[in-house]
Amino acid sequence: MRMVDIIANKRDNKELTKEEIEFFINGYTKGDIPDYQASALLMAIYFNDMTPEESANLTMAMVNSGDQIDLSAIDGIKVDKHSTGGVGDTTTLVLAPLVAALDVPVAKMSGRGLGHTGGTIDKLEALKGFHVELTQDDFANLVNKDKVAVIGQSGNLTPADKLIYALRDVTATVNSIPLIASSIMSKKIAAGADAIVLDVKVGDGAFMKTEEDAVALAEAMVQIGNNVGRRTMAIISSMEEPLGYAVGNANEVKEAIDTLKGEGPKDLTELSLALGAQMAVVGGKAKDLEEARTMLEAVIKDGSALEKFKVFVNNQGGDGSLVDNPENLPQAEYHYDVTSDEEGYVEVIDAENIGVAASILGAGRQTKEDEIDLAVGIVLEKKVGDYVNKGDVIAKIASNTEDVDSVVQKITDSYHLGKEQKKTELIKRIITA
Amino acid sequence: MRMVDIIANKRDNKELTKEEIEFFINGYTKGDIPDYQASALLMAIYFNDMTPEESANLTMAMVNSGDQIDLSAIDGIKVDKHSTGGVGDTTTLVLAPLVAALDVPVAKMSGRGLGHTGGTIDKLEALKGFHVELTQDDFANLVNKDKVAVIGQSGNLTPADKLIYALRDVTATVNSIPLIASSIMSKKIAAGADAIVLDVKVGDGAFMKTEEDAVALAEAMVQIGNNVGRRTMAIISSMEEPLGYAVGNANEVKEAIDTLKGEGPKDLTELSLALGAQMAVVGGKAKDLEEARTMLEAVIKDGSALEKFKVFVNNQGGDGSLVDNPENLPQAEYHYDVTSDEEGYVEVIDAENIGVAASILGAGRQTKEDEIDLAVGIVLEKKVGDYVNKGDVIAKIASNTEDVDSVVQKITDSYHLGKEQKKTELIKRIITA
Repeated sequence: MRMVDIIANKRDNKELTKEEIEFFINGYTKGDIPDYQASALLMAIYFNDMTPEESANLTMAMVNSGDQIDLSAIDGIKVDKHSTGGVGDTTTLVLAPLVAALDVPVAKMSGRGLGHTGGTIDKLEALKGFHVELTQDDFANLVNKDKVAVIGQSGNLTPADKLIYALRDVTATVNSIPLIASSIMSKKIAAGADAIVLDVKVGDGAFMKTEEDAVALAEAMVQIGNNVGRRTMAIISSMEEPLGYAVGNANEVKEAIDTLKGEGPKDLTELSLALGAQMAVVGGKAKDLEEARTMLEAVIKDGSALEKFKVFVNNQGGDGSLVDNPENLPQAEYHYDVTSDEEGYVEVIDAENIGVAASILGAGRQTKEDEIDLAVGIVLEKKVGDYVNKGDVIAKIASNTEDVDSVVQKITDSYHLGKEQKKTELIKRIITA
Repeated sequence: MRMVDIIANKRDNKELTKEEIEFFINGYTKGDIPDYQASALLMAIYFNDMTPEESANLTMAMVNSGDQIDLSAIDGIKVDKHSTGGVGDTTTLVLAPLVAALDVPVAKMSGRGLGHTGGTIDKLEALKGFHVELTQDDFANLVNKDKVAVIGQSGNLTPADKLIYALRDVTATVNSIPLIASSIMSKKIAAGADAIVLDVKVGDGAFMKTEEDAVALAEAMVQIGNNVGRRTMAIISSMEEPLGYAVGNANEVKEAIDTLKGEGPKDLTELSLALGAQMAVVGGKAKDLEEARTMLEAVIKDGSALEKFKVFVNNQGGDGSLVDNPENLPQAEYHYDVTSDEEGYVEVIDAENIGVAASILGAGRQTKEDEIDLAVGIVLEKKVGDYVNKGDVIAKIASNTEDVDSVVQKITDSYHLGKEQKKTELIKRIITA
């Protein structure tokens, strides 16, 4: 087999065989196939797309290129959730205890944030003492006992994906549906997921700019998952504003607690219920989304979801009493209001910009080595569809420095006001197969 | 300027600017742009093609990437001819003296053969004493005095083309019209041509398999030439059989002499007149192809074309008396007939295979270091459209070894006989602008 023939086949829109795809992935991971051949193939894939079969084979070849997490010691169908990137996306904090309360095992491998997006582990560390340094045995035991645990990323997962991602970035081949889909799915599968729920963001601030593209990506991933024996569903959700009100670490934990109590922001609650319902269905705990949703609403109402969060926090060394007393979460020294100097209906809030603003405050890190400040953050006071008068407070800043001018400016710039009241539609589409 | 943006622009079918193309070519030649970005761009060009403007800019950027031959010391419009590859293609030997006899200056830089195609210098060296080691001054003086001289390739011409060609070969991006066209045109322009005539071969044995592709390539090259101030014309000619009868060195020289006398094979004569007419027109010596053809027929008839060949050979140290006595050209020791064991009309003669057969005899070289045997070769006795009976001689072999079994086999395999008499059509299309 020769790589140049594989490139020519893809260029000529012939379906690549499993063997050809494995030859490429294995050879490229080992360094036997040079970057210049890989990039030519990626560009040919960009133009000619991949069939569902090719995408599934590419995904599994990337899974097999490195270590795979063995979750066989954990009983039941392990369900994982993935979001294609969000700011103030507190859903993981809500979903983990919420679906665990239905006895869906949540054995989550999670990471830290970089740039303008927060990491789930960072947020959880706002709960004093919480840590993810668990042995594989402790991790499995915790999930078996209480259905939920989070562990840090470890192992050499999907090295082929890392190599290909780096190459795509410098060869203008990032925006290819089969390449994005196989990248995401391979990471989830290598991390041990038996079933997967996807939150595909759409909008100016998201990776997928149009609903059409987002649906195509979601369908590609759902197809891959189901083709490789991982039941997969997806939701297309709008990113025309940050989810919920809070952006930061301690304040997102507080918002997650509110949501688990049934007192959270409408959009965060809605998305958590929608994703949670899919997780319950693919996890085999509910026969359909409607039944799942009823079950989820019940565990919020009877307090068992909140209780599950407390157990989860205590299990991993955190101070579970903070769940009842979130006012004891880390607090910032200074508080500022951001007021509007314009008036009109909020039409869009640039989520990425709000994320950058929170990052400037210290809530996020620029490089992997940066320390983050768990106490600082932003709480939005106005959301899309709200009317803003001149002088109204649009957001509140919690800071540990008095120099917040650039943060105020970023937040102000993020709000786009207009004359018409836009109807927001958070969940654009539900894709179940 | 960033290479990744240039790739993205081409990927998105935006026309690249002159500056972007120069950034790529200069950066890649210097080694500042890595192969993997170059190959991604080449694949994007493969899919999205190039506009005439882009192709012209690419060509000139490649010309400017290295040395350029300065022919300004030579008077008049220097016309060059290029063939996209042929076997037994003796046209250069015929055309050089033929158009020089019309006072069109032929200042030719030529190479040696490799693989199954013969080189013009190799063939000329069959004329004892002929050499191409001329100083630039001698070369210019000879062309000014007698209108024709041939010099060996020198200088670091179009290094960008060499780098890109090597990369295309391993990334399945060879078959791209703008890349082929700019590669050919850049070499001719760097070699100093003021005007160019192209012979684009078409057929199973040629690089361009269909007339449609051949016309597209020819039109692309003609457009590039005219866009960069080099008047350019092209002919699409069939390659369903070798041109003429002779394949080898001494025997092709003999055939060229016959043709200059007006006694050559019909196809070689026809193609030489067609290409020569275009050379006379782009060289400014005739107002149209018809007038040019009349002039060419006249210099064959009155013997001045043959006389010009003699002067040319003498000027470069060769034995001009061989032109009058071609029986004194190098002769092989053994002669064999190849007979047919089938019957029918010759439908196709695989030119590449015949070239390989001649190469096995020693007429061509496998590596640049090989010595070649000027005396050996093949003379076809039957051509497309001829009827062959069992036992008829289809070709004659001139060899310096008695072991010619594999050569006989190759020649036999090259002849495809059938039931219908095919009408051959050598010149498929004339492209003048």
